[in-house]
Amino acid sequence: MYYRMIGAALIALATALLTGPRLIRYLKKLHFGQTIYELGPSHQQKQGTPVMGGLMMAAGILLGSLICHPAEWDGIWDFVFPLLAVAFLSMAVGFADDYIKAIKKRHDGLSPWQKIAGQVVVSLGFSLYCYFSPRVGSAIRIPFTAAEWDLGIFYIPVMTLLVIFIVNSSNLQDGLDGLLGTVTAVSSSAWAVICLLITVLPALGGAGSTTYGAATIGAFALAMAGACVGFLRFNRYPAKTFMGDTGSMLLGGGTAAIALLLRQPLLLALIFFTPIMSSASVIIQRYYYKLTHGKRIFLMSPIHHHFEKKGYSETQIVSMYAGITLLLSLIAVISVCASK
Amino acid sequence: MYYRMIGAALIALATALLTGPRLIRYLKKLHFGQTIYELGPSHQQKQGTPVMGGLMMAAGILLGSLICHPAEWDGIWDFVFPLLAVAFLSMAVGFADDYIKAIKKRHDGLSPWQKIAGQVVVSLGFSLYCYFSPRVGSAIRIPFTAAEWDLGIFYIPVMTLLVIFIVNSSNLQDGLDGLLGTVTAVSSSAWAVICLLITVLPALGGAGSTTYGAATIGAFALAMAGACVGFLRFNRYPAKTFMGDTGSMLLGGGTAAIALLLRQPLLLALIFFTPIMSSASVIIQRYYYKLTHGKRIFLMSPIHHHFEKKGYSETQIVSMYAGITLLLSLIAVISVCASK
Repeated sequence: MYYRMIGAALIALATALLTGPRLIRYLKKLHFGQTIYELGPSHQQKQGTPVMGGLMMAAGILLGSLICHPAEWDGIWDFVFPLLAVAFLSMAVGFADDYIKAIKKRHDGLSPWQKIAGQVVVSLGFSLYCYFSPRVGSAIRIPFTAAEWDLGIFYIPVMTLLVIFIVNSSNLQDGLDGLLGTVTAVSSSAWAVICLLITVLPALGGAGSTTYGAATIGAFALAMAGACVGFLRFNRYPAKTFMGDTGSMLLGGGTAAIALLLRQPLLLALIFFTPIMSSASVIIQRYYYKLTHGKRIFLMSPIHHHFEKKGYSETQIVSMYAGITLLLSLIAVISVCASK
Repeated sequence: MYYRMIGAALIALATALLTGPRLIRYLKKLHFGQTIYELGPSHQQKQGTPVMGGLMMAAGILLGSLICHPAEWDGIWDFVFPLLAVAFLSMAVGFADDYIKAIKKRHDGLSPWQKIAGQVVVSLGFSLYCYFSPRVGSAIRIPFTAAEWDLGIFYIPVMTLLVIFIVNSSNLQDGLDGLLGTVTAVSSSAWAVICLLITVLPALGGAGSTTYGAATIGAFALAMAGACVGFLRFNRYPAKTFMGDTGSMLLGGGTAAIALLLRQPLLLALIFFTPIMSSASVIIQRYYYKLTHGKRIFLMSPIHHHFEKKGYSETQIVSMYAGITLLLSLIAVISVCASK
């Protein structure tokens, strides 16, 4: 079981590293250069970097978690399939967007309503699945305690909105070389560690937890971490490829799926703090702008562009976000231990 | 107990962040600019960056682990005191070296023999302490199993050499902006997670483990992680300060002390792989040079300079080392779970 978890991480890493160069060459050949979002500060030189590099992570996560999941046969349906479904269907929405932008060269991609419609289908479907699954149910855990909070029927709309929010937060944070990849490498590792804790002591995961269930989710989280580290080989500053909406929605969907299956969505506030902060900064900026009739609270949103305008380099911001994610992830891990 | 562990990380972080600017100003005023090691590739512009910034980590680790250790009164002597003693006495050797270089402006610092003599005293003393301590003893754990390997009296010389090797590996890796700080932030987090696992399930740590003992070592590891993240605020590329031998020997000593007290020195091969690789590359380079009468296997050693000469930027190398450390740390954490 534990060796399989290691296998998942290493297979995902190797897949991303091995498919990377070929994928990048292929994407370049198709003239898949991204049209850089015009409002980004001084990123004009990034024109021409192929987008949709996230596909190498998708390949890694798929192979790693399919070959090496430690689930019994029924566990595949309980855990492996839902995780992959949410991650890859979320990715499909992003992929459609990237495809229209890069191939059809239409800057606007999918319309916002098309995107949201796609995301609603995925996240509503997944919330319904969790609600009715005997392994998950409508109760969520309260960090630092052994208590659970049963949301009842409200679980469905709340979690639907949460999954959409997380996927879009992930998407919004993907704006600097290596940023989301680094943050998700750390956050996925944190989820993996939480799964390991539940594996060795199922009581930490609450009544519905099983050793194999937690190990299976953990193998998926490890595959995500391995895929991110592999992808960073090509995405760290200066990036040879971007993950695109393809990649950011894959990672956001995968992260949300892990959190919900573990009944720990509240831990997203710690482990996925920086992507949520990215979303929050966009929302705050927009409302502040409306309220004050034209003033801005940040120099630019999402907030990583604010830091860029303040004079921090891309690599400095990535390092800062990674450090924040690391410490908050440790607190999240401790919160699970404290629920004993 | 768990809240104290969080406190240790946050106090260490806050201490490093708050003392940082003042310390840097003070060090600059004393003209503590480091003379850059002449063989480093194109780092001449780093001349004048104040060294001994590691002191802010020292302050953070000291305050964090003293204020927030979760040990009972006797645990202070069993764990808190030995951890701090090894870390700070190792640091003292590095500090003496930095002091001679920076204040007395003698490029060579302590003589190699003076350094080694100081390190032998510290590591021999600590190995003797572990050997005679009822909480540690002469047996070390074999990763992935519940087995222990009793080294008997050989524990003392082997661990003495190991501690010296780890401290010097840490020292050798400290050659690029943010490199050792980032790697140690991750590796310390891994130690903290291992301590958390033993805290929730003492069987994972073997017969001598206690909940409070593991939590106390964990609080120290969390203080190290917090201090590293805080320090990186000032050390990430482009660095405003270097940690110096002061900092690198502090981190090396602290890491070695954690590993020995947990009876998991073999896990250093995974968690502290990249610093060990730095040492190994220096040794390999030297012997290859002697054997071949003048040929080099790496363009330059330690190996991070080899990568620099190969055209990778400092931030790329830091990111790569961090990714390797993250994945190997996860494997180390899994190995502890697998010992159940």
